[in-house]
Amino acid sequence: MRLARIAHPGGVAFASIEGEGGDAQVLEIAEHPFGKPNFTGKRWPLADVRLLAPILPSKVIAVGRNYAAHAAEFGNEVPSDPMIFIKPSTSVIGPNAAIKLPAASQRVDFEGELAVVIGQPVRNVPASRAASVILGYTIANDVSARDLQKSDGQWGRAKGFDTFCPLGPWIETAVDPSDLALRTELDGVVKQDSRTSLLVHKIPELVEFVSGVMTLLPGDVILTGTPEGVGPMTAGQQVSITIEGIGTLTNPAQAA
Amino acid sequence: MRLARIAHPGGVAFASIEGEGGDAQVLEIAEHPFGKPNFTGKRWPLADVRLLAPILPSKVIAVGRNYAAHAAEFGNEVPSDPMIFIKPSTSVIGPNAAIKLPAASQRVDFEGELAVVIGQPVRNVPASRAASVILGYTIANDVSARDLQKSDGQWGRAKGFDTFCPLGPWIETAVDPSDLALRTELDGVVKQDSRTSLLVHKIPELVEFVSGVMTLLPGDVILTGTPEGVGPMTAGQQVSITIEGIGTLTNPAQAA
Repeated sequence: MRLARIAHPGGVAFASIEGEGGDAQVLEIAEHPFGKPNFTGKRWPLADVRLLAPILPSKVIAVGRNYAAHAAEFGNEVPSDPMIFIKPSTSVIGPNAAIKLPAASQRVDFEGELAVVIGQPVRNVPASRAASVILGYTIANDVSARDLQKSDGQWGRAKGFDTFCPLGPWIETAVDPSDLALRTELDGVVKQDSRTSLLVHKIPELVEFVSGVMTLLPGDVILTGTPEGVGPMTAGQQVSITIEGIGTLTNPAQAA
Repeated sequence: MRLARIAHPGGVAFASIEGEGGDAQVLEIAEHPFGKPNFTGKRWPLADVRLLAPILPSKVIAVGRNYAAHAAEFGNEVPSDPMIFIKPSTSVIGPNAAIKLPAASQRVDFEGELAVVIGQPVRNVPASRAASVILGYTIANDVSARDLQKSDGQWGRAKGFDTFCPLGPWIETAVDPSDLALRTELDGVVKQDSRTSLLVHKIPELVEFVSGVMTLLPGDVILTGTPEGVGPMTAGQQVSITIEGIGTLTNPAQAA
């Protein structure tokens, strides 16, 4: 199932998307998408609604240096334990919303990532049960002010600006995430081209590790790390991240 | 006004605390404490209710190395810009709740701090207007797994465990925070003894800086940094942080 959050003529709702291309339909969900969703019976053509961030997480836990070739491109080692940091919920935006480039930074980079959406309140989940607590998978852009990331040391500012966590276009609940092609294009030019099979710390291990530190709530999102090929965006450019079996997340960059 | 969140025989509510010592009374607030609170008319002696974390923030923004003598005790420089990081909302506990010492760490430290509670949704607040967007002040313990903080580099794990952000005992709305005594005691022995006048980046500057990065929501909390004298807690010990004009936040440490 593809779970989305939409703005339609009557308001905002969770929804399921059925069908492909011009025939795709959006089916409104009555309350929330956790567990077995209840449908209201309302539906629209996908083209008639606006997709929002598919979930509003209470927290976004991101993993640093989780592809060896990306760690290497900045001269870093892959950490033996996952290196985690928090992106504030206020950084989340949906597909096609603008990434605002702050005046405080001279270099803001895209980072295409597979994102894991948690489906229930959990703590201390063993890797063997991780799949059972996951609602599904979406695409994230871990937008990073590279200069501030280096000068600050801690990444709270560099990765925490409003608009620095595009998510979407929807949550795919039925995909096997272990070996998916991930490709990032900047104005149509391929910049990142990797596979999720190259994740150093795999998704079950990440769920075990993160849930061993902190309680995860329904809708919380784990960003699994970015592969090599990150680079800067400038105002007017557009970044598109495609993950096989999920879809494409596109956002323009604008001056703040 | 002292704003608290309480568990009383009928449930959980925000409340205002009036009077001192054995005469203190708790007055139930109808909805939330932002703006001018509405009172339900219910009241209890303070001794008959349990104080919870006075607010459940959507995010906790913490500032590193914001007292020169604390930066120096670990051989660090004071950063020219505030160094910020996020503690997850799931790390928040209230007064007298146990700090759980995770098995993954061999050294978990207390860090007594003045905490700023935001009163309204804001972005880009100039320092000159910071006071007008602050609901009040409370006390925080920025609990830190010191060994993991060093080995991980990023502090998301070391400062993000469940129970690692005690807040309370209440929010004082009427205090001038610019020069308050801050004292931390471990089992009654004074470990930190400083004044908020020694903050490197002052509260108005912190509000301007943080709100220039991210939207702040009502109830969001900024931890202003800890002075020198931090040190480890072991299971069975009790840490009490007192800030002049606010009160005392006490929490026991327990094995997780």
